[in-house]
Amino acid sequence: MKIFTGIQPSGDLHIGNYFGAIKPMLEQKNNLIMFIADYHAMTSVLKKNNLLKENIKKAAAAFVSLGLDYKNNIFYLQSDVKEVLELYWILSNFTPMGLLERAHSYKDKIAKGISPNHSLFSYPVLMAADILLFDANKVPVGKDQIQHIEIARDIAIKINNEFGQIFSLPEALIDENMQTIVGTDGAKMSKSYSNTIDIFTDYKSLKKQVNKIASDSTPLEEPKDWQNCNIFKIASLFLNEDEQNSLKQRYASGKEGYGHFKLYLCDVIWEYFSKARAEYERLLSTNEIYDILNIGKDKAKVLAKQNLDKIKQAMNI
Amino acid sequence: MKIFTGIQPSGDLHIGNYFGAIKPMLEQKNNLIMFIADYHAMTSVLKKNNLLKENIKKAAAAFVSLGLDYKNNIFYLQSDVKEVLELYWILSNFTPMGLLERAHSYKDKIAKGISPNHSLFSYPVLMAADILLFDANKVPVGKDQIQHIEIARDIAIKINNEFGQIFSLPEALIDENMQTIVGTDGAKMSKSYSNTIDIFTDYKSLKKQVNKIASDSTPLEEPKDWQNCNIFKIASLFLNEDEQNSLKQRYASGKEGYGHFKLYLCDVIWEYFSKARAEYERLLSTNEIYDILNIGKDKAKVLAKQNLDKIKQAMNI
Repeated sequence: MKIFTGIQPSGDLHIGNYFGAIKPMLEQKNNLIMFIADYHAMTSVLKKNNLLKENIKKAAAAFVSLGLDYKNNIFYLQSDVKEVLELYWILSNFTPMGLLERAHSYKDKIAKGISPNHSLFSYPVLMAADILLFDANKVPVGKDQIQHIEIARDIAIKINNEFGQIFSLPEALIDENMQTIVGTDGAKMSKSYSNTIDIFTDYKSLKKQVNKIASDSTPLEEPKDWQNCNIFKIASLFLNEDEQNSLKQRYASGKEGYGHFKLYLCDVIWEYFSKARAEYERLLSTNEIYDILNIGKDKAKVLAKQNLDKIKQAMNI
Repeated sequence: MKIFTGIQPSGDLHIGNYFGAIKPMLEQKNNLIMFIADYHAMTSVLKKNNLLKENIKKAAAAFVSLGLDYKNNIFYLQSDVKEVLELYWILSNFTPMGLLERAHSYKDKIAKGISPNHSLFSYPVLMAADILLFDANKVPVGKDQIQHIEIARDIAIKINNEFGQIFSLPEALIDENMQTIVGTDGAKMSKSYSNTIDIFTDYKSLKKQVNKIASDSTPLEEPKDWQNCNIFKIASLFLNEDEQNSLKQRYASGKEGYGHFKLYLCDVIWEYFSKARAEYERLLSTNEIYDILNIGKDKAKVLAKQNLDKIKQAMNI
């Protein structure tokens, strides 16, 4: 079983990304194909003074420093494997316009008044090419992306019907147990809500972000309710059971205020990512990450070429 | 001034193609960039048992045997220069959906009840990429393609506005003097009207096609009106002034019937293309044409890479 996943290089990662998506992914052994989706990112970032290159480096460095085993898996940059664009064009010839016009993500963007470009509209076809190029079985996605996997399946079925069994059909892998990580305001942590706590940031900024966590107005000297406290909820992600219990006792003791707990959380987060942070900074200060991406490129290209050749042969093109 | 033109590999070429488009093109010296548009062809031919590969070989062999000077110009196969697909994706990010939705060729196809695929819709973006990848100034097109050149200009202008003067703006080159070649039924010669006379066909089939030419019912022994005769119209494409005059005299003499003129035309066509036909058959029976396309590929790739690098650098991607 191959697990296939792409992530957009969109700047700084936060702990919601980490516990919600990255950590579960990194626990996959040996069967992961993961790519940085820079072509997809272009649908939103192509302005003057864009930071695409910097963000690609940051994303790659982040994943590697957080423990992605790039040696035993495949980790590559989308634009390094241009075969995907040829398959994208081929698939376009089997993609009814109606299929794309019905895509929720496209309709949502129109509804929000975003004046759409062609790339935004055709995004699901490129995504289908990403998946089908690697004959990926399982694609972990959020619920908002299920329809895109269905589109990839529909295109694959159309082609199989015409030319025989070329593609195996991809399946969306939805982790029902996947935790929603709360942000500093208690809502889901998300860049678009400005309620994030970043993974790789300096101590001062981390402190500032943690200090934003909303808490109630229980006076310092009274016992506090850990169950409904966002500070506790976030801290518990980083703590083992013993540590959680001792924090609960501090909540109950009525000797400390939320400020103390925030300071504690700040140190916990700082410590938790300290090794990764050092590696991240080292990777950003050198060009080593490009060597790592080249390793992935070589591995991905072998698979991609092989598969694309097989597809084209079956289609007699 | 660079002249840029693409042709779809769509099977057998007819004399309407030759006198209407190919011959004028072959008269261009040294400044021609010409490609076989196999990606574009995919928008209509991708079925089981498609003949795309065969048609690519036929088209390339036809152009070379008809005199295309591939040594002093650039003649390549679209899918050999994959840079076009990366530019296609980049351009998609600057292509408002409305621009494509307003394309006549797309609207016409919908009006005809053709259930459109995404490739048919996005065709003008790929065409813009073809043109802008080679910084082509002049693009000879039929009137039905003018809007596609305008789309390419619009996309180029949007990008220039954001990033500075990256692209020079292409211009449609419309030859107002371009002849419309009549088909065997007197309407414009076109594959879709089944009124064509093919360039490269055996003598028997040529005779059959020429015999289909519609003529009036003037009896054999009466003088005939060359001015309104389709046989004469087609013959005159192949004849110099003296030859035309002597044919006019035969029309006036009242000694011959249309059957004689058809036989004469058949021999004229057969003779006119005899050298090209021998070369065409030789090229089809060997793999030499792929060496010729490889020469073009090498030349085109140098230009394409250089230009794409320049574009990506200007966009900081």
